[in-house]
Amino acid sequence: MYVVIVYDVNVSRVNKVKKFLRQHLNWVQNSVFEGEITKAEFERIKDGLLNIIDENEDSIIIYKLKSKPSREIYGIEKNPIDDII
Amino acid sequence: MYVVIVYDVNVSRVNKVKKFLRQHLNWVQNSVFEGEITKAEFERIKDGLLNIIDENEDSIIIYKLKSKPSREIYGIEKNPIDDII
Repeated sequence: MYVVIVYDVNVSRVNKVKKFLRQHLNWVQNSVFEGEITKAEFERIKDGLLNIIDENEDSIIIYKLKSKPSREIYGIEKNPIDDII
Repeated sequence: MYVVIVYDVNVSRVNKVKKFLRQHLNWVQNSVFEGEITKAEFERIKDGLLNIIDENEDSIIIYKLKSKPSREIYGIEKNPIDDII
């Protein structure tokens, strides 16, 4: 599956979330990661995030898509993963 | 189409972007909006954003999906639009 993950996490935990997600996905913008993963990886990512965040304060949304979505980027492309893949 | 819009915009323009997107889409998290729109609305949103942002400094990604994606939310749901719709 292809996931897009957006997070809104307290500043005290934001670097931990970023560091963790960087091990599994591509950073595309401030507080946004995406990438193709397996179901097993999805479970690992989910468990890892739940270990880091405070569920009473932070918020994470994982969009689960069948394949890499069409997207348009305006302004600067902070991390042009399309060039890397 | 269903769009998810994430933005990373200089603080001097962030309220303008938020105010503009709120007219067209549902706010789901800090710097994230989504919603079902027509092709004409997509063009209006795109033009409006390009008028607001500084393309040398800001970044906006619009994911264009066929329909509302499956998603999982961890932690607090900052704006539970599913309950509204």
